[in-house]
Amino acid sequence: MPQLGLLPGRAWTVLLGLLRPPPGALCIRAVRSHSQVAEALIASQLKPHQEKSNFTIKTPKGTRDLSPQQMVVREKILDVVVSCFKRHGAKGLDTPAFELKEILTEKYGEDSGLIYDLKDQGGELLSLRYDLTVPFARYLAMNKVKKMKRYHVGKVWRRESPTIVQGRYREFYQCDFDIAGQFDPMIPDAECLKIMCEILSGLHLGDFLIKVSDRRILDGIFAVCGVPESKFHAICSSVDKLDKISWKDVRHEMVVKKGLAPEVADRIGDYVQCHGGISLVEQMFQDPRLSQNKQALEGLGDLKLLFEYLTLFGVAEKVSFDLSLARGLDYYTGVIYEAVLLQTPVHAEEEPLNMGSVAAGGRYDGLVGMFDPRGHKVPCVGLSIGVERIFSIVEQRIKTFGEKIRTTETQVFVATPQKNFLQERLKLIAELWDAGIKAELMYKNNPKLLPQLHYCENMGIPLVVIIGGH
Amino acid sequence: MPQLGLLPGRAWTVLLGLLRPPPGALCIRAVRSHSQVAEALIASQLKPHQEKSNFTIKTPKGTRDLSPQQMVVREKILDVVVSCFKRHGAKGLDTPAFELKEILTEKYGEDSGLIYDLKDQGGELLSLRYDLTVPFARYLAMNKVKKMKRYHVGKVWRRESPTIVQGRYREFYQCDFDIAGQFDPMIPDAECLKIMCEILSGLHLGDFLIKVSDRRILDGIFAVCGVPESKFHAICSSVDKLDKISWKDVRHEMVVKKGLAPEVADRIGDYVQCHGGISLVEQMFQDPRLSQNKQALEGLGDLKLLFEYLTLFGVAEKVSFDLSLARGLDYYTGVIYEAVLLQTPVHAEEEPLNMGSVAAGGRYDGLVGMFDPRGHKVPCVGLSIGVERIFSIVEQRIKTFGEKIRTTETQVFVATPQKNFLQERLKLIAELWDAGIKAELMYKNNPKLLPQLHYCENMGIPLVVIIGGH
Repeated sequence: MPQLGLLPGRAWTVLLGLLRPPPGALCIRAVRSHSQVAEALIASQLKPHQEKSNFTIKTPKGTRDLSPQQMVVREKILDVVVSCFKRHGAKGLDTPAFELKEILTEKYGEDSGLIYDLKDQGGELLSLRYDLTVPFARYLAMNKVKKMKRYHVGKVWRRESPTIVQGRYREFYQCDFDIAGQFDPMIPDAECLKIMCEILSGLHLGDFLIKVSDRRILDGIFAVCGVPESKFHAICSSVDKLDKISWKDVRHEMVVKKGLAPEVADRIGDYVQCHGGISLVEQMFQDPRLSQNKQALEGLGDLKLLFEYLTLFGVAEKVSFDLSLARGLDYYTGVIYEAVLLQTPVHAEEEPLNMGSVAAGGRYDGLVGMFDPRGHKVPCVGLSIGVERIFSIVEQRIKTFGEKIRTTETQVFVATPQKNFLQERLKLIAELWDAGIKAELMYKNNPKLLPQLHYCENMGIPLVVIIGGH
Repeated sequence: MPQLGLLPGRAWTVLLGLLRPPPGALCIRAVRSHSQVAEALIASQLKPHQEKSNFTIKTPKGTRDLSPQQMVVREKILDVVVSCFKRHGAKGLDTPAFELKEILTEKYGEDSGLIYDLKDQGGELLSLRYDLTVPFARYLAMNKVKKMKRYHVGKVWRRESPTIVQGRYREFYQCDFDIAGQFDPMIPDAECLKIMCEILSGLHLGDFLIKVSDRRILDGIFAVCGVPESKFHAICSSVDKLDKISWKDVRHEMVVKKGLAPEVADRIGDYVQCHGGISLVEQMFQDPRLSQNKQALEGLGDLKLLFEYLTLFGVAEKVSFDLSLARGLDYYTGVIYEAVLLQTPVHAEEEPLNMGSVAAGGRYDGLVGMFDPRGHKVPCVGLSIGVERIFSIVEQRIKTFGEKIRTTETQVFVATPQKNFLQERLKLIAELWDAGIKAELMYKNNPKLLPQLHYCENMGIPLVVIIGGH
């Protein structure tokens, strides 16, 4: 007679309701796996192979595989990011990994040399996308979309010299949120900064600060300090280095390498070493030189409004007006921002990581118009989350705390202590799968019980169904 | 005095618990949006632009953007697929979009010409991945992994002549599930077929059939029919065309183009036109010629066992032994399978789509060994779901039934009927966001009420908070 033997337990009761004992299964038992012995390795059948490869098996320079453990970490991070984007009403969008080469040309300034081109195999000339912003602008222009709030999570590729310790790769994920459309000033811009705060708080990365400035203020400073317009770009990229090298070194570069008059450089120095909150905005409004520059005044007016909205959003104290902020990409036209972690290591023995910025963005009102045959503009503002750098931090935190990560979600393991029970195990597990239960078994005709329990232990599978007869 | 005016309703009660009325907000109301007027379009500020582009703005040939509507459909499909993979205990894995060119060389037979190469910009020669199987095998060999059950969802690229009506693109998603390791025969193979059944049933694509065969049986047939071994590949690729052209045409190709003796072709024809269930396997065991071939007997033995397991899994009736199945890729070594939809259009006026196969796979026991410097083999079996073709079917079904798809998940819209309430709206929506509620507002200082309600109507937002004063 078939018989049903059960160990007590909440989880088993749940299972019981779902399972009918398959005919021929004389005994079903559910127990919590708890053995501590080593995993039974089914010996691999190793045979030498004729076709030996004579090159190194590796991933391309600057790229990597993500192991199951790493995938779990990345998915948790992406989940926080995408949930936030959806909380703010964004729609999803996907674009191809490559674009027509011309689409990317003249969008990235000095960085254009880092674009991966595809080989000309006949047909169109193509390049791998360098960011998600230009494809978004291309999408808007191509489909004549005048208003859209979208998010996009996808890989981008840049032929940078990889310094992998810093979390820089040639292939990496970007998570972008952008608002396209003509709206009243600074409302979408403030939302972008609010989103950055929500995500960085939600990921528990420690304290952070968002530096903001405006391209028009920087241009205004250059103009009133006496920089010739032809040198704006070169001087801007010098200023961009202020987070890595000292003002003394930046000044040296400006004067010696870029031929700026020393007194002009000193005037710039007075400005770009300033940072503060809304009070600095007010101070710059009163600045005798800067207040004469129309562009700078527009930028300052917008920043003032931005800080007002950030106060209403409750995030103003996370944001600093920083005149040294320049941002590399060519397409920005207004407000720009960059989030940096203010990291103190969790443990004294932990090495602090220099992560650079973990999120950044800004306003780019001209980019869509560059793709529109009639030059129709669609103003845009957005942000990009640097997932890889965040990933490095979270990964290190997990290592530090010795957290164990489950790489599968399996709920039930179907085991047997007896020989000749493969048929019953297969019937039973099919019932579990059909009932939507995540289940596994050992791919062996007659497995021993210990290796089966042990697999559960290793994989963190909470429940075992043991099937047998007597 | 502040006053709180509420319409009755379950959802509002939920909201109420979360919201404190911001100071200065004199009246908060929650109503269900139900207006039927047209969406208020905030007029885009259109200015002509100097930098006009003089090339066509498009995506590269054979690629496309996915609109927010399409993204929702694709995410639903991927959700069914990935849930099933996780139900079967698979771990996630990610590999770079490109591999060293040599990794992909000699893995795809005739199709190798369809691989996208990257331009030589100095450094390594790279190619975009052509499938997810070869990168998986490379990962196993590189990391000396002897056993792994993994899934991988990602884009692959093939320079095929795009026939977009059939859902064929040059960039498309693959969803792969593979089991690597030395196990008792046919247990993992049967699970792969079970997974295909679960996914195709779960997607409600109508009736389907999975054709199975074995490379060793096909090779055995060629051998006993008298095909010279040098012509196995060429004749195999002719057989592969049997789902598109008639036996008469395939025979013609074999004899006229590939120089096979007519009587040899006829003998092949007797075999490859056979299909059936387990009884056909038995019949082939009795076949006087085929039963003399060791390879074919091995294949038949495995198929017999496979059908036994499929019966236990309750899916045998979905599977047909089909001797015409050949599968294009070079790396298969044992059982092969391909799922086709048996499609009758939902409506008589609907055009039936020829979707080809929607899922396929097989056993490839030699691929990992090709990457291992010592030739160590890791037997593998797996499957790939053709998401793009499934996508076309689901998309057409949605069009047919006129289903409306929400492209955002916004729960609450913060509106006002009055002027000068931007500050209160911003404070209120920040509270909603901080409480994890998906909320939107109009990016306008003084919006009119109707366009606000109307946006909710269009976007399917179920709740509106109306804030005002008196």
